[in-house]
Amino acid sequence: MENRSLVTIAEHSREKILYMLEMAKEFEAHPNRHILDGKVVATLFFEPSTRTRLSFETAANRLGARVIGFSDPKATSSSKGETLKDTIKMVSNYADIIVMRHHLEGAARYASEVTTVPIVNAGDGANQHPSQTMLDLYSIYKTQGTLENLNIFLVGDLKYGRTVHSLLMAMRHFNPTFHFIAPDELRMPEEYKIYCREHNIKYVEHTDFTEEIIADADILYMTRVQRERFTDLMEYERVKNVYILRNKMLEHTRPNLRILHPLPRVNEIAYDVDDNPKAYYFQQAQNGLYAREAILCDVLGITLDEVKKSKGVIQ
Amino acid sequence: MENRSLVTIAEHSREKILYMLEMAKEFEAHPNRHILDGKVVATLFFEPSTRTRLSFETAANRLGARVIGFSDPKATSSSKGETLKDTIKMVSNYADIIVMRHHLEGAARYASEVTTVPIVNAGDGANQHPSQTMLDLYSIYKTQGTLENLNIFLVGDLKYGRTVHSLLMAMRHFNPTFHFIAPDELRMPEEYKIYCREHNIKYVEHTDFTEEIIADADILYMTRVQRERFTDLMEYERVKNVYILRNKMLEHTRPNLRILHPLPRVNEIAYDVDDNPKAYYFQQAQNGLYAREAILCDVLGITLDEVKKSKGVIQ
Amino acid sequence: MENRSLVTIAEHSREKILYMLEMAKEFEAHPNRHILDGKVVATLFFEPSTRTRLSFETAANRLGARVIGFSDPKATSSSKGETLKDTIKMVSNYADIIVMRHHLEGAARYASEVTTVPIVNAGDGANQHPSQTMLDLYSIYKTQGTLENLNIFLVGDLKYGRTVHSLLMAMRHFNPTFHFIAPDELRMPEEYKIYCREHNIKYVEHTDFTEEIIADADILYMTRVQRERFTDLMEYERVKNVYILRNKMLEHTRPNLRILHPLPRVNEIAYDVDDNPKAYYFQQAQNGLYAREAILCDVLGITLDEVKKSKGVIQ
Repeated sequence: MENRSLVTIAEHSREKILYMLEMAKEFEAHPNRHILDGKVVATLFFEPSTRTRLSFETAANRLGARVIGFSDPKATSSSKGETLKDTIKMVSNYADIIVMRHHLEGAARYASEVTTVPIVNAGDGANQHPSQTMLDLYSIYKTQGTLENLNIFLVGDLKYGRTVHSLLMAMRHFNPTFHFIAPDELRMPEEYKIYCREHNIKYVEHTDFTEEIIADADILYMTRVQRERFTDLMEYERVKNVYILRNKMLEHTRPNLRILHPLPRVNEIAYDVDDNPKAYYFQQAQNGLYAREAILCDVLGITLDEVKKSKGVIQ
Repeated sequence: MENRSLVTIAEHSREKILYMLEMAKEFEAHPNRHILDGKVVATLFFEPSTRTRLSFETAANRLGARVIGFSDPKATSSSKGETLKDTIKMVSNYADIIVMRHHLEGAARYASEVTTVPIVNAGDGANQHPSQTMLDLYSIYKTQGTLENLNIFLVGDLKYGRTVHSLLMAMRHFNPTFHFIAPDELRMPEEYKIYCREHNIKYVEHTDFTEEIIADADILYMTRVQRERFTDLMEYERVKNVYILRNKMLEHTRPNLRILHPLPRVNEIAYDVDDNPKAYYFQQAQNGLYAREAILCDVLGITLDEVKKSKGVIQ
Repeated sequence: MENRSLVTIAEHSREKILYMLEMAKEFEAHPNRHILDGKVVATLFFEPSTRTRLSFETAANRLGARVIGFSDPKATSSSKGETLKDTIKMVSNYADIIVMRHHLEGAARYASEVTTVPIVNAGDGANQHPSQTMLDLYSIYKTQGTLENLNIFLVGDLKYGRTVHSLLMAMRHFNPTFHFIAPDELRMPEEYKIYCREHNIKYVEHTDFTEEIIADADILYMTRVQRERFTDLMEYERVKNVYILRNKMLEHTRPNLRILHPLPRVNEIAYDVDDNPKAYYFQQAQNGLYAREAILCDVLGITLDEVKKSKGVIQ
């Protein structure tokens, strides 16, 4: 039997990505449906992530499923010395889908190999976060009308940010031009630049973050510059204030520009940007609900056709 | 569009209070109804409060809604530096109602100003706790048959106790006579006495807590005297044993007297009181379910008429 | 009114045990049913136990009930000095069933005496864990086709392990022969050996754990040997490696032998045993779902006949 787990977005073909976006669109039209009635979704957060957990739990609940799980690794049997394999096999007895966040890279892949219950990777270390990428793609698609031939600017921590790595890989099907804007300490790792060259993805690197540089951006994807990434705190203090997007920087940008951020933000987007129509990060978070509803159905083998035929809850 | 958030009971008119009590009564008759099917209620407890959380979650579940949320502030993105505004806007993407407890006064008001999703204040610092007041009012109404012209004795910590402050303000419509019984350190603050005088609320202050003083009480509202409120622990030790209600003190009280307590109690009500028919604090907690069902419906704009027409779950 | 709480398996007659196994069997055939629609199950874990909590919560959800509760004792009002009695009485206002785990022996019994809401003991100290015993019995029954006349080997920590104590008592109706295999420090306590003699239960004690000793076992019930049980760590280091079941030890065992373990395991069953058809501990955990569905129904007075008539959710 096919394992339908979602471990990495890199495995999705161009067709599969576009199909998933269609499904997300269908859920946006009617987010409440009885299509997962009788199903149990386990949310296993070995590392806390309130935002991602609440988003998945809302998706499950709005589709009629029930939710079990934990949000705090200290509460689990791992602390008694249980292996990840045993924990996953145990939960597989109870749940129809396992959504998991883990601090170790490869944990989701490993989990998908020890159970027949589909695993949804909700982030494994600095590695992958495919449901975030799916909502990023859906946000780009909705705001630009297409995924093709876009200028995408990635700003901030490009070294450790799993969301920018996943997005880069997923966009390979759509002829993007990337601009990597990061301080030296947090530059895009060499392996992803090699990936770009192998897949004919155009990219330009910058260390400055100015109005001029972002003039022809279609998408400005901001990320947090985290203090703990720096060995030299003086350097952090200098860099922190350079990679802040302020409202006045947006004056001469393209009308179709939209600003994305995986959230939570700290200070990398000034609050005066929030009311700019180009700010899209809160709607982007909302798109997460629809993208995750699509993912929960897809890993169970529920097709877009079946979703379309499902009856919404009357509200 | 009208913001229907419940931030403070002080905004409720006499008519609105009586209307909410009618709705609570309707829910007491049939607590299980499908009236919130398809709705998601978020319970955001930035400060733990098991009792209030379980009460709201039961109310949501018995009406068919689904619950998401957190019970532990450490698990949230606040710990990553996210502002309350961003957290509220994020959860607004997922939930139809946000029930929140926060340690800062004014947090619920602020939250209600940054989102269109209705906020239910489940306690903000020492400020307000309107759902507690609603269940207190319902308990008084049920046991006395009226809210009018009652002798209400507030006992214990009147300085920091938000429940007594809210109750006092809500009762202004009903011509009460209040008796404030507290040690000097924990007296009713001047601002609430001014409030009483402005609204023609009669009040008497006492430092003694004796059988004679409570002889004509209709309602005896007990609160915890918390050790941490005292700078002088000797004073705490003295006071602690004075403000204990014992069964023998109730012998000559009025037959209609009922004893309320917001719970949890520690030792301020002796256990021999529990079996006295005048003890009402556990039933009071049960009334919290019905009062909160009414609140959840009201903030969504569901009317008493619509509640009456809704079909109960057959049990 | 009859209190239907499940505090200890020792109170169950032979007939009641067989009846509960029939009910578990019925749930295994159709785990999803609307039989608890409109009910609220509270899971109060004063001591964390992810496995047991998730199992009960899955059982409740698959039967249509809703779940409230807490998984972390620090989050409760106990930390404010509230008594267990008050906490139980409070939750009784909200829930139709209370499932509780507590670190103190006798806590579940006490809880069942202060409320009319049925209590399900999910473990009280080193005392009882009746739902575990029910799934153990169901696992034995399913794999052996009977509970009668079996050779049951209990291995590991027989001193503190509440699961082996409960199982021993429940098996008294079925003429078992027990073998107790444990290091001196962790031998079966005298009181349980007296219990065996009083109930004509045959038993043999061993300190060695070898292929020869387990040759005629029908059931091999493994338990964790916990480091913290030893005052002499040298002794722990010696013992730890003796009480490990390895695949090669199973070569000459009976074909009907099945290996049980309440899980989580640490190293007392080597991983090479997992693929042996005699390994049954993961299926055993799955049986926990059906056994707990039966328990939740039984404490509410729902009969096997009513369960059989209930309609399953179509999946």
